[in-house]
Amino acid sequence: MTMMQSAWFISLFLSILICFQTLEASPRSTNSFPLVRNISKIPQGSYGIKGLSHATLAGSVLHGMKEVEVWLETFAPGARTPIHRHACEEVFVVLKGSGTLLLASESDENKEFPGKPKEYSVFSNSTYHIPFDDVHQVWNSNEHEDMQVLVVISRPPMKPFIYEDWSTPHAAARLMSPMVFDVQSPPKPKDEL
Amino acid sequence: MTMMQSAWFISLFLSILICFQTLEASPRSTNSFPLVRNISKIPQGSYGIKGLSHATLAGSVLHGMKEVEVWLETFAPGARTPIHRHACEEVFVVLKGSGTLLLASESDENKEFPGKPKEYSVFSNSTYHIPFDDVHQVWNSNEHEDMQVLVVISRPPMKPFIYEDWSTPHAAARLMSPMVFDVQSPPKPKDEL
Repeated sequence: MTMMQSAWFISLFLSILICFQTLEASPRSTNSFPLVRNISKIPQGSYGIKGLSHATLAGSVLHGMKEVEVWLETFAPGARTPIHRHACEEVFVVLKGSGTLLLASESDENKEFPGKPKEYSVFSNSTYHIPFDDVHQVWNSNEHEDMQVLVVISRPPMKPFIYEDWSTPHAAARLMSPMVFDVQSPPKPKDEL
Repeated sequence: MTMMQSAWFISLFLSILICFQTLEASPRSTNSFPLVRNISKIPQGSYGIKGLSHATLAGSVLHGMKEVEVWLETFAPGARTPIHRHACEEVFVVLKGSGTLLLASESDENKEFPGKPKEYSVFSNSTYHIPFDDVHQVWNSNEHEDMQVLVVISRPPMKPFIYEDWSTPHAAARLMSPMVFDVQSPPKPKDEL
């Protein structure tokens, strides 16, 4: 996967960046970037996921957040996250559109792989959370409309384990850390036009 | 303050409630309420703050969240939060309207009281965060329009210290724990009509 290769390739750069962030980090260190940010001017990119537009509104690596991170993401019709799990809490608020949450069943937790996921319909003005470490995928299953979500995570930065498919053994899921949007330079606004 | 008195008065009830929540809490315990929730059906109330409408989208006491909590709040023109501080991170995303964030200056942190706050304009499609333990107040200073925000906090449930005004000594700020919306039964939908 090109996205994952890119992430690994620049891990050294990130290590240096994290050291720098840690040195200047304190509860009040976030004054080094504007306290109020215009979302329309925050860089957005697909970061290797087809049909995704991701913007980090308040981030760990980017903005010095310690305990929560907030993203704004738009999924084009058909776009999906990778199948993945992570050891943190995650809450979604659907602002526009609709789609499907695929979530491996809790009753299957003792299996060696996720197995067939349950499907949950999500829709504009709904909210849902991902239980800690459950394997899941978010999919804009609506052919006619973008799906826009606010995403909240704990324990930033996110360190997800990625599954090729729902029969990938848990032990074979691959750690994606750092996340691509924490290490790639986001595209400049002109690239989006 | 009626709101605070109410909060204290039912603290015993909350203690019992928290014990019950803890007993059944686990990373997957949130299955005891619907995974996907229709925001328009989530109870809303002012909980003693004039002009506020608060809804807990994903809560610690209400839903078993451990590390993050997400609220949807609407401020009528002129409505304000109390002046307060809290030992957690907080991120706001302004969905509609505009207003003012009042934040005690970092340079004044060694004073015994907050002092005159800085004023930051916030607006639809902007995001801002509150530095850990900074004294602040959110105010819909727009006379003509409601201000709607999504609020994210870490370390739920929130345990704020409340100031009577900007000259209240830090040592005299009063702990409001539990928060009223974590212990009061929210109004039934018919009360809102």
